[in-house]
Amino acid sequence: MTATIDRPISQVPDSPASALICRNCGAQFPLGAQHACFECFGPLEIGYDAGRLSRVDRAGIAAGPQSIWRYAGLLPVGQDERTRVDSHTGMTPLIRADRLADRLGFTAPLWVKDDSANPTHSFKDRVVSVAITAARELGFSRIACASTGNLANSVAAHAARIGMDSIVFVPADLEPAKISQTAVYAGTLVAIEGSYDDVNRLCSELAETDEFEATAFVNVNVRPYYAEGSKTLGFEVAEQLGWRLPQQVVAPMASGSLLTKVHKAFKELQQIGLVPPAEYRVFGAQSAGCAPIVTAFDAGEQTVRPVKPTGIAKSLNIGNPADGPYALDAVRGTGGAMAQVTDEEIRAGIQLLAETTGIFAETAGGVTTAVLAKLVSSGRLDPARETVIYNTGDGLKTLDAIADRVGPTAVIAPTLAGMRSAGLL
Amino acid sequence: MTATIDRPISQVPDSPASALICRNCGAQFPLGAQHACFECFGPLEIGYDAGRLSRVDRAGIAAGPQSIWRYAGLLPVGQDERTRVDSHTGMTPLIRADRLADRLGFTAPLWVKDDSANPTHSFKDRVVSVAITAARELGFSRIACASTGNLANSVAAHAARIGMDSIVFVPADLEPAKISQTAVYAGTLVAIEGSYDDVNRLCSELAETDEFEATAFVNVNVRPYYAEGSKTLGFEVAEQLGWRLPQQVVAPMASGSLLTKVHKAFKELQQIGLVPPAEYRVFGAQSAGCAPIVTAFDAGEQTVRPVKPTGIAKSLNIGNPADGPYALDAVRGTGGAMAQVTDEEIRAGIQLLAETTGIFAETAGGVTTAVLAKLVSSGRLDPARETVIYNTGDGLKTLDAIADRVGPTAVIAPTLAGMRSAGLL
Repeated sequence: MTATIDRPISQVPDSPASALICRNCGAQFPLGAQHACFECFGPLEIGYDAGRLSRVDRAGIAAGPQSIWRYAGLLPVGQDERTRVDSHTGMTPLIRADRLADRLGFTAPLWVKDDSANPTHSFKDRVVSVAITAARELGFSRIACASTGNLANSVAAHAARIGMDSIVFVPADLEPAKISQTAVYAGTLVAIEGSYDDVNRLCSELAETDEFEATAFVNVNVRPYYAEGSKTLGFEVAEQLGWRLPQQVVAPMASGSLLTKVHKAFKELQQIGLVPPAEYRVFGAQSAGCAPIVTAFDAGEQTVRPVKPTGIAKSLNIGNPADGPYALDAVRGTGGAMAQVTDEEIRAGIQLLAETTGIFAETAGGVTTAVLAKLVSSGRLDPARETVIYNTGDGLKTLDAIADRVGPTAVIAPTLAGMRSAGLL
Repeated sequence: MTATIDRPISQVPDSPASALICRNCGAQFPLGAQHACFECFGPLEIGYDAGRLSRVDRAGIAAGPQSIWRYAGLLPVGQDERTRVDSHTGMTPLIRADRLADRLGFTAPLWVKDDSANPTHSFKDRVVSVAITAARELGFSRIACASTGNLANSVAAHAARIGMDSIVFVPADLEPAKISQTAVYAGTLVAIEGSYDDVNRLCSELAETDEFEATAFVNVNVRPYYAEGSKTLGFEVAEQLGWRLPQQVVAPMASGSLLTKVHKAFKELQQIGLVPPAEYRVFGAQSAGCAPIVTAFDAGEQTVRPVKPTGIAKSLNIGNPADGPYALDAVRGTGGAMAQVTDEEIRAGIQLLAETTGIFAETAGGVTTAVLAKLVSSGRLDPARETVIYNTGDGLKTLDAIADRVGPTAVIAPTLAGMRSAGLL
C-alpha cells in the first residue's frame, strides 16, 4: 500500500477504533489505509477499544441523527460530526410483512429491512458514507471503487455531494440503469470489458501505482473502514425491534461482507450490553448463477472455489468472494443455513415481495425473498421464529428482470365502452 | 357522488377537520367523499376547527413518528394511529445545496427538499398515504387513481402493503419504468389510449357508476383528503429549518395542487403559532411542453386555458390543471413568479442537480432546477434570500431523458495498458 503507511493516524480524531486486525492470523497493525496483512496477506478488519465501545448507550444513540451516524460511537470514523459525510443514509424502514408471512406459513413475526430507502437506493450508501468519511480523514483527495453497479452509483453520488473527485470502475455489461445513474453525477466512469472480478483485480493493481497514491478505493485500500458501514444494518434492526435481536436473519451474499458485519454488529451489541444476550441464526442467499459460498456450505468445505458468474442478479455476481470463508463461519457458527435460487425463482421472489409488502426490490432482494421461501419449505428456517430479511436494493435498477413478466391488465380506449370490452365494468 | 352522501361521517374518528369548503363560492358541506360543490361545481377542500389545530405543538410533533403522521393533528384523518396507512412516507431529507448555490450565484442558503426518498420515490406517497387512510375510514373497499405514473406506482404499492384491491389508470404512452413498477404490485393496471386528461375524464365518469360505488379514486372522489397530504411538504421544511419558513420556495406544477398546499401549510403554521410570522414568496415551475399556468401568469390572466401536453416531463403533463387558478393566486399573492423551461433545459437541470448535490431527479426535478436557474438569472428570484426547491421524484423513473447524454468516460480492457490508452493513467 504505497499511499498509506506514512499517513498520519492522528488525522482520525478520537475514534474508538484501536487497530487493524488480521482476520486470518490475528496480527495487529496501526489504523490507516491498509487492507491486507503484512504477515499472511489475510484481510484486515477494524478492532476497537472495548472500554470506548461500552461507553455507548441507548439514550446517546436515540439523541443522534436519523442516519447511520447515530452509531458513530461504534464506528471507526465520524465521531466529530463535522468530519462526517452525511448523505442521510440509514434508519431505513423495518417493515412488518404480515401478508408475506401468511403466504409462507410464518407463525412468528416476519420483517423486511428495506434498504432501497437509502439515497441511491441500496445498502451501499452505508459503506460509502463511512469509507468517504475515512478517506477524507486519512487525507485522500479522490475516491474510487470496483463495482457491480450499486456501489458505483453511491460513490459517484457521495462525491458529487461533497465536491470530491471520483473514478469508478464497472463491468461494461451492467444494467443500463446503473450505468446512467452513475454517469449522471459527472465523475469519471470507466467501463471494463470483463467480469467484476477482472474489475476488482485492475483496481488492486491501480491502488499500487504512484498515479493513484491519493486515491481511496473504497473496497480495496480503505476496505476495513468501508466494511464497518454494514454493521449499521445490524444496529438499526436491533434498535427498531426495541433493542433486541431477531431470532433469524436472511442476508444476500456477494463478497459475503454484509452478512458477516450484521453478525459482528449483533455480537458487539451483546458485548456492550445494548441488547440482552440471545441466540440467533444467520442465513445466506445467493443466486444459482453465482453461488460459490453456498456450494462450499453444501459440501461442508471451508474453501470457497471461485466461479465465473452468470445470471440476472448482477449486484451479487462476485465469483471470488473475499469474505466467503467468514460468511461460512457466521452461518455455521450460529446454526443457520444457505441456499441458492434460479433466475426464474429470483423473478418470482421480486413479484412475491412486491405483491405482499409493496416493496419493489432489485434482483438481490428477489434472491433473498426466494431463498427465504426455499429455506422455510425445506424446513431449514423456522417459521415459528421471528425473522428479518434484508432487501439491499431497488427494483427500479433492475427493471429488465421483470419487464417481460408484468404489464397492463388491459389497454383500452378512454371510454366506458372500452372498460366494458375489457371486462372491467 | 353516488357512493358518498350516505356514508357515516362518524367513521372518521376525532378529526380536527370540520367541513368540506368550496374554494370557489365558500359553501360548506359535511365531511365525506365529495369533491365538487353542489352549488357551483367548484373544487372542495378540507376546512378545520381552528381551536383543534391550535392544540398542536412542536413537542407533540417531535414525539411523533419519523413520517408524515407526526403531523396527524393537522391532517383530516389518521389521528388514531391504528387507522393510519403508514408506509414510512415523509421526513425526507432537506439537503443543503452549497455547491448548487455557488454555481447559481446564491449568497443565501439554498436547500433541496428531496422527495425521491419516499418509499416509491416520489411525493405522491404523501397524498396516497392520506387518501388511502381516508378511503378505509370512509368505508371504501377499493382504491383507484388517474395517474401520469408516479401516483399509479404509489397507489399500487400502498394497496399491496395493506392488501386492498386497487385499479389504476395511466396513459398508455408512459415511461416503461413507471408501467413496470406499477404492474409488479399485481393490482389492476389499465393503460388508456389517450392523454392524462382523457384518463382523468374517464375516472370521473367511472366514479359515478354503480360498479365503482365502493371505489375511492384518490384524486377524484376523495381528492379533498388526498390533496391535504401535500401540506406535509410545507410542514417538514419548516420543522427541518428549526421551525421557521424559508423566504422563497420553488415547486413544480402539474395540477398546481402541491404548490397551493405548501402555501396552505405555511399559512396554517403561522396561524397556530408553530412558526413566527414571516414573508415568503412562492415560485412555480412548468415545462414548455405543458405550461398552461405559466402562460396565464405571464399574460396576467386568471383563467388557465387547457393545452395538449408534449415533452419529456410526463409527470407534469396535465393540460387542464384543476388547481391552476389557485396556484396563480398563491404565486401572485406572495410576490413570486413562474417560468417554463424546454426539454433541453430540463435535461441540463437534471445534470446540474446531480453534479452539484448527488441527487438524481426525474424530469420534474429537472424542470424545477432549470426554472430556479432561469428565475435567478432573470432577476425574478433573489439569490440573497434563503430558498427551498422541491424535488418531487426520482431519476430512475425517467432514465430515457438522460440516457443518451451521459455514459462511461471510457470503455477499456481490464489492464493498466487499457487505462493508459484511455489517458487515465
